Amino acid sequence: MVTGPTGGYELFYWPSIQGRGEFIRLALEAAGAPYADVARLPATKGGGTKALTAILEGAGGGLPHFALPILRHGSVVLSQSAAILHYLGPKLGLVPDDEPSRLAANQLQLTIADFAVEAHDTHHPIGSSLYYEDQKPESARRSELFLKSRMPKFLNYFERVIEANTAGGGWHAVGSKLSYVDLSLFQMMCGLGYAFPKALARFSPKVPRVVDLRARVAAEPAVAAYLASPRRIPFNEHGLFRHYPELDP
Amino acid sequence: MVTGPTGGYELFYWPSIQGRGEFIRLALEAAGAPYADVARLPATKGGGTKALTAILEGAGGGLPHFALPILRHGSVVLSQSAAILHYLGPKLGLVPDDEPSRLAANQLQLTIADFAVEAHDTHHPIGSSLYYEDQKPESARRSELFLKSRMPKFLNYFERVIEANTAGGGWHAVGSKLSYVDLSLFQMMCGLGYAFPKALARFSPKVPRVVDLRARVAAEPAVAAYLASPRRIPFNEHGLFRHYPELDP
Repeated sequence: MVTGPTGGYELFYWPSIQGRGEFIRLALEAAGAPYADVARLPATKGGGTKALTAILEGAGGGLPHFALPILRHGSVVLSQSAAILHYLGPKLGLVPDDEPSRLAANQLQLTIADFAVEAHDTHHPIGSSLYYEDQKPESARRSELFLKSRMPKFLNYFERVIEANTAGGGWHAVGSKLSYVDLSLFQMMCGLGYAFPKALARFSPKVPRVVDLRARVAAEPAVAAYLASPRRIPFNEHGLFRHYPELDP
Repeated sequence: MVTGPTGGYELFYWPSIQGRGEFIRLALEAAGAPYADVARLPATKGGGTKALTAILEGAGGGLPHFALPILRHGSVVLSQSAAILHYLGPKLGLVPDDEPSRLAANQLQLTIADFAVEAHDTHHPIGSSLYYEDQKPESARRSELFLKSRMPKFLNYFERVIEANTAGGGWHAVGSKLSYVDLSLFQMMCGLGYAFPKALARFSPKVPRVVDLRARVAAEPAVAAYLASPRRIPFNEHGLFRHYPELDP
């Protein structure tokens, strides 16, 4: 939870949105890991969006990166949220130790990533380089289908995942302790609840295990402390999840 | 290259398209690994699309799966192409041994997966449950932006990746031997060349390393043999990459 250079984890992500960076922030926060949210530091301490441009252009050394978030940890500089979480999971104690569970966690995280793309594309079905205002009719069509078939399909899937994993009790998506998959599923529910409060409220009774998981993650002390802190950036209309009332009739 | 139950690898994917399954088929074929392409077997040998429905519904045991492809290998039943390749890579000798290279391969594969989603959505910007014919104007808009900004951005990125990885010679995207990332990048180029032959021909001179990688992968003996065999399903208008001339003016 330290927000200065630490020699530990450094997250490079946009400083004014949750976006895809939030899946990483949640993991670091839930584990109580010291990290720097680099672009939120003052420019005098190496922060600001200049730091983002620099690392995207390869200032971290090694492989070029297509997009943020990027994690730097020692000599490792890694992008792609699911790859970062696969790397961080064992280090933060946020994934079970056994190989089958780690394979499962990676599979589930990639499905959450697909879900996130589709949630994003409800407001940007034509192109991310255009404004929402330039693709409103298309957004209305895509959102209607998303709420009618895709969101239910994904949430029903995760309901079955939790059901299969908790036959012997518990509430987790994988294993029997808090994992990065639980955190990411929590974040999806937060985002959908922000973007589509009416549709999510209508559908929630059909996925009680997912709803319960969201509440339980929110109640984890480290998560609760983070959510109540200024480090949790409020949702807004610049990120992955956006609330346009006309898309949630 | 065996196409019967082998006790080895079993791939579950649609039998009439390349789609996302092709990234897995290419890896298995390039490595000369014995595998069954289950749905392409006769129903009397456990094949057909019924086998796909069954495994999606959990007949393989363990975790539910959201979508195909699914790989079964011993007690492992795994979905999500990038997760499957991350699992297969070390076993097939299609990823370097060192941890930094494996992290890099996973990161690159996830970026290829993002690229594939965007290539797909050129013909399905509104919803995958609708026909192309029901979203033609939107497809034209999305394709124009894809060809103008997204395809160049992705291909320029992979050009830089190869450039960074081959400063000391060679042609690979990661490491110094054929990897699943090379195979997947080859497949992206094949698909883009099928869907958008004119646009790809115009842009190709700007990414000579990617073009060279495609040619070199195609010339790998095991890959060349596969491409010449009936096991390589021709592209068609039911898969990930589709050729609609009006989208490639």
